[in-house]
Amino acid sequence: MPTPQTPTFRLNGRIWIEAHERFMGVGRLELLEHIQQTGSINQAAKAMNMSYKKAWELVNSMNRQGADPLVLTQTGGEKGGGAVVTDAGLRFMEKFRLLQQRFQDFLNTETHLLLSE
Amino acid sequence: MPTPQTPTFRLNGRIWIEAHERFMGVGRLELLEHIQQTGSINQAAKAMNMSYKKAWELVNSMNRQGADPLVLTQTGGEKGGGAVVTDAGLRFMEKFRLLQQRFQDFLNTETHLLLSE
Repeated sequence: MPTPQTPTFRLNGRIWIEAHERFMGVGRLELLEHIQQTGSINQAAKAMNMSYKKAWELVNSMNRQGADPLVLTQTGGEKGGGAVVTDAGLRFMEKFRLLQQRFQDFLNTETHLLLSE
Repeated sequence: MPTPQTPTFRLNGRIWIEAHERFMGVGRLELLEHIQQTGSINQAAKAMNMSYKKAWELVNSMNRQGADPLVLTQTGGEKGGGAVVTDAGLRFMEKFRLLQQRFQDFLNTETHLLLSE
């Protein structure tokens, strides 16, 4: 018969970069990755089950807050034509991925400490 | 005339301890602090603009998941009598405060790195 066990605790969390408002987080990173892959805000939004309006607002929020735009859009065609992640965008994506890795290291280290106490 | 400035980025975030579900986060810590101060789930809930039902659910969630209960309640009187944070509860509160401090150190260090790049 199984005995009641002490639950296995783990530390979890979320990080994001902010300036005037939220600038970059896991959702925005994923959106940029989809834009990079599809060349389209519309298709990126669809891949994330997000409205085009919401995706466009997120892109606009990032572009407003960065010193350089992270995504360039071309007008024309249905749903506003293509979109390209800029070099500045790619650099922020890489920066946030590395931040996420270090945060995951922090969570893992602290979870080990929690369990060893 | 002010020139456009590069925005000041900072890293922000949230952490929480989870087991089967969320166990301890900033909100639950604050609730425990109010229970400790007031000796009452009802008064603690009021101090946080939270319903008594919600506060009781949070206490119940913590008590279910800890090896020992974090809060003991006494029946009797209007709104269920008094409540006491146990030694186990006090230890978890201190543990989470220290976790929060180390997380804040992480956020500060990473914010410095962001700004120095």
